[in-house]
Amino acid sequence: MKPVKLVVVGSIGLDTIETAHAKKEEILGGSVSYACAAASFFSHTGMVGVVGTDFPASCLEAYRQFGIDLKGLQTAQGKTFRWSGVYEKDMNNRRTLATELNVFGEFKPELPADYAKAPFLFLANISPELQLHVLSQAKSVRFVAADTMDLWINIARKPLMDVIKAVDLLTLNESEARLISDEYNLLKAARKILGWGPKYLIIKKGEHGAMLFSKAGIFVVPAYPLEMFHDPTGAGDSFAGGFMGALSEKGEIDDSAIRRAMGYGSVVASFGVEEFSLDRLCRLSRHDIQNRYEDFLKLTHLG
Amino acid sequence: MKPVKLVVVGSIGLDTIETAHAKKEEILGGSVSYACAAASFFSHTGMVGVVGTDFPASCLEAYRQFGIDLKGLQTAQGKTFRWSGVYEKDMNNRRTLATELNVFGEFKPELPADYAKAPFLFLANISPELQLHVLSQAKSVRFVAADTMDLWINIARKPLMDVIKAVDLLTLNESEARLISDEYNLLKAARKILGWGPKYLIIKKGEHGAMLFSKAGIFVVPAYPLEMFHDPTGAGDSFAGGFMGALSEKGEIDDSAIRRAMGYGSVVASFGVEEFSLDRLCRLSRHDIQNRYEDFLKLTHLG
Repeated sequence: MKPVKLVVVGSIGLDTIETAHAKKEEILGGSVSYACAAASFFSHTGMVGVVGTDFPASCLEAYRQFGIDLKGLQTAQGKTFRWSGVYEKDMNNRRTLATELNVFGEFKPELPADYAKAPFLFLANISPELQLHVLSQAKSVRFVAADTMDLWINIARKPLMDVIKAVDLLTLNESEARLISDEYNLLKAARKILGWGPKYLIIKKGEHGAMLFSKAGIFVVPAYPLEMFHDPTGAGDSFAGGFMGALSEKGEIDDSAIRRAMGYGSVVASFGVEEFSLDRLCRLSRHDIQNRYEDFLKLTHLG
Repeated sequence: MKPVKLVVVGSIGLDTIETAHAKKEEILGGSVSYACAAASFFSHTGMVGVVGTDFPASCLEAYRQFGIDLKGLQTAQGKTFRWSGVYEKDMNNRRTLATELNVFGEFKPELPADYAKAPFLFLANISPELQLHVLSQAKSVRFVAADTMDLWINIARKPLMDVIKAVDLLTLNESEARLISDEYNLLKAARKILGWGPKYLIIKKGEHGAMLFSKAGIFVVPAYPLEMFHDPTGAGDSFAGGFMGALSEKGEIDDSAIRRAMGYGSVVASFGVEEFSLDRLCRLSRHDIQNRYEDFLKLTHLG
């Protein structure tokens, strides 16, 4: 059996999403779903998450189609996490209508023995206490990335700071970077956050791309311009999953590998938002990704 | 005497600007001021505009310091154009408080004989009727760019369409591109606008960079990330001026020259917004621009 190179822990949910153009009910979502699906094109990826007994078999089958290792997936008595939200016309702002934690409220992530030996770990958005609990089990990890959200910045700052100190890479969106640093300017925000410990910080800007900050400087990628854009849900998780997948694929961690991973993360995320849920990623091949990546190189090549 | 390679026509104003951090009264502004200053680092540039008899000698001296050719600058009886506005904290939205057209209301731009022979022309933001009047005088022009604004899209659509049909390059910001095309998606907007005639379309996205559209495809540049950012006024004009300056410098018009010009436009605009009015550009050298351009290449180099 292929060893798991990358472990991702996060949420699994059934999402009800409304955009200006469509409404979809109880579709597969959650940070770990998007991140594992995106990473699976590059690396053998293990999923750590929890679902309820009502979780549709078709969703499990979708995970398997991606080749995701599911030993870390727990099934608990009760209902799967639900989230519903509505997007404004510009797709940049969304409003949460309802959150039902269900089995996710009692989630205690545990790493199967072989996951604990995996060299790459992505702590997708869950409470910082759970992120720390997972981190303490990852005995042989070489590179850890973590994501978070405004909620934890507001109510769990202390454990979140422990996560930030311990990881190699932190990913935040623009407003989270401003909130956590209390700096409006993103360069000032980044300098402060890097001062807390992580070697790398990625600030995600949605349709405007992403910025990577490290002691070596700044690297900026635009988003791949899209004509078809139906659902931004999970874009940040697909980006981070694609990034971690691409980074773990070769296993080297240097400036050039990090840039390449930023490119692949952007490209996979750009496919993801073309349709709802994992619908587009389900029909995607590594060849499609490579073609768009080559196009992305041309699109951004200044000279 | 060096021949004028690039002619820029547009507005000259004394601006009163309020941001979250500062208020500046009656400082030198206007599209042609920013665009000519930016272009002057690359090409001998001629200015076509109008000022009143109250126009400060110090502002004329500033133009001369940039080496701008002022034969096309008219002085009319009366007061110089005034504009005042206030920026929101995020610097992306601004509100006009007052506009006094003054001598600009009677402006009739005329090209001096040698300007009419210049190979490059930038029609910065003035009424489309005046842009057409200038275009009719440019007998030997090889490459014409035009900018516009929401006002002309709303009240002068017909002459504006004549401008768009006649130029090689149109520059618009995001909201103008959506307004004129009635398409929210920028790729759809761009395809429609290119269908009207221009070979190139640049959609300016402020702090998020700029996108170039042509039959050959899309090229995207981010904005140079800035820690010091005091006044976005004129950023689009500095970008376009830097672009046209860099393009006219060597005179070749191909994909590689256009990309290079996009980079130089971004870099000059990034300096411009560091301070109010032309203050930063006044202290800028071609060497400073080159250094930041090299940095910009690294910053955007995906692989």
